[in-house]
Amino acid sequence: MQAQFITLDGIDGAGKSTNLTVIRNWFETRNLPVLFTREPGGTPVGEALREILLNPATQAGLRTETLMMFAARCQHIESVIAPALSGGVNVVSDRFTDATFAYQGGGRGVPLADIAALENWVQGGLRPDLTILLDVPLEVSMERISRNREKDRFEQEEAAFFTRVRDVYLSRAAAAPERYAVIDSNREREAVRQSIESALNQHFGF
Amino acid sequence: MQAQFITLDGIDGAGKSTNLTVIRNWFETRNLPVLFTREPGGTPVGEALREILLNPATQAGLRTETLMMFAARCQHIESVIAPALSGGVNVVSDRFTDATFAYQGGGRGVPLADIAALENWVQGGLRPDLTILLDVPLEVSMERISRNREKDRFEQEEAAFFTRVRDVYLSRAAAAPERYAVIDSNREREAVRQSIESALNQHFGF
Repeated sequence: MQAQFITLDGIDGAGKSTNLTVIRNWFETRNLPVLFTREPGGTPVGEALREILLNPATQAGLRTETLMMFAARCQHIESVIAPALSGGVNVVSDRFTDATFAYQGGGRGVPLADIAALENWVQGGLRPDLTILLDVPLEVSMERISRNREKDRFEQEEAAFFTRVRDVYLSRAAAAPERYAVIDSNREREAVRQSIESALNQHFGF
Repeated sequence: MQAQFITLDGIDGAGKSTNLTVIRNWFETRNLPVLFTREPGGTPVGEALREILLNPATQAGLRTETLMMFAARCQHIESVIAPALSGGVNVVSDRFTDATFAYQGGGRGVPLADIAALENWVQGGLRPDLTILLDVPLEVSMERISRNREKDRFEQEEAAFFTRVRDVYLSRAAAAPERYAVIDSNREREAVRQSIESALNQHFGF
């Protein structure tokens, strides 16, 4: 089996951090070569782009921001992901292009076709072999996020935003079920862990 | 007449700086509203991107670099060019997308179709109404550039590079003669000035 490109994605509060450990343990237990990475990938240019995006003074427009995210992704693929895969090392990326479709597209209104055009431009034929999509209902997502923030920041507008984000994630998964494992993350940790391991076992043929 | 979008472009050493003054004087004499700009356009995000591109430590790949140039252009259009044009102010840009086709495309090998795809993504229907393309033979370009550098830097490889750059400029102009005024810049200043003024007069119907 060729090295596999796995991505972990999902709406904020869906439990990515916790379950990244589950994936890490799964690979360790099986002693499979694996590289864990996350966007923008730790490349110098990616980090520099991230700083610009996080600096409110730069005031990048939405389409400019989308181009910059794909520029960082381009370098991430070229410097990190592609070399690992072609060297026989599996790659697990914490977030990838699905997040751009969900957040910049669904959430903020960049046409999905425009994101797909950049995806093709930057990635060519590279797509995740498996995307583990953690899903929770909107209320759970907002409850989990709000623990670290003031409750009243979550206005109606934010609920609508996250609803659109989640809808795009789920509709992408529904359109390509062979590539996505949608995991109901609104359950006990142990049950979620079993679902993720089962998805990995099935994908790798264990 | 709607506000016009004019670009000045051409191979290094073709005399852009000198002839920018010619264009500036032409607009001043006629008292036409005009904004002079240059890529990346002086926007905060454009300047930040430019710093990354100029910093050798970031080591951006060629395709990453191309995306970053278009990100800067996207912001330049949105913050500077489009507002001026829609406010009735003519815009003159020192370099624009033709330079990406010529340098990243012809010079360094990004497929021209890939650049055209980003051009459409970023610019929609926006194209210069007139591009003043200053042209000089390769030998003149290299002679003019080399004045400020050591002669021996100009190896065979660089001659081939600039030949490809110039070829793309000229073939783009040949493919859309109604949009380009190709000015032979290998003449006395006064003759070049007259050609540029004549192109502007014709474009604006004077």
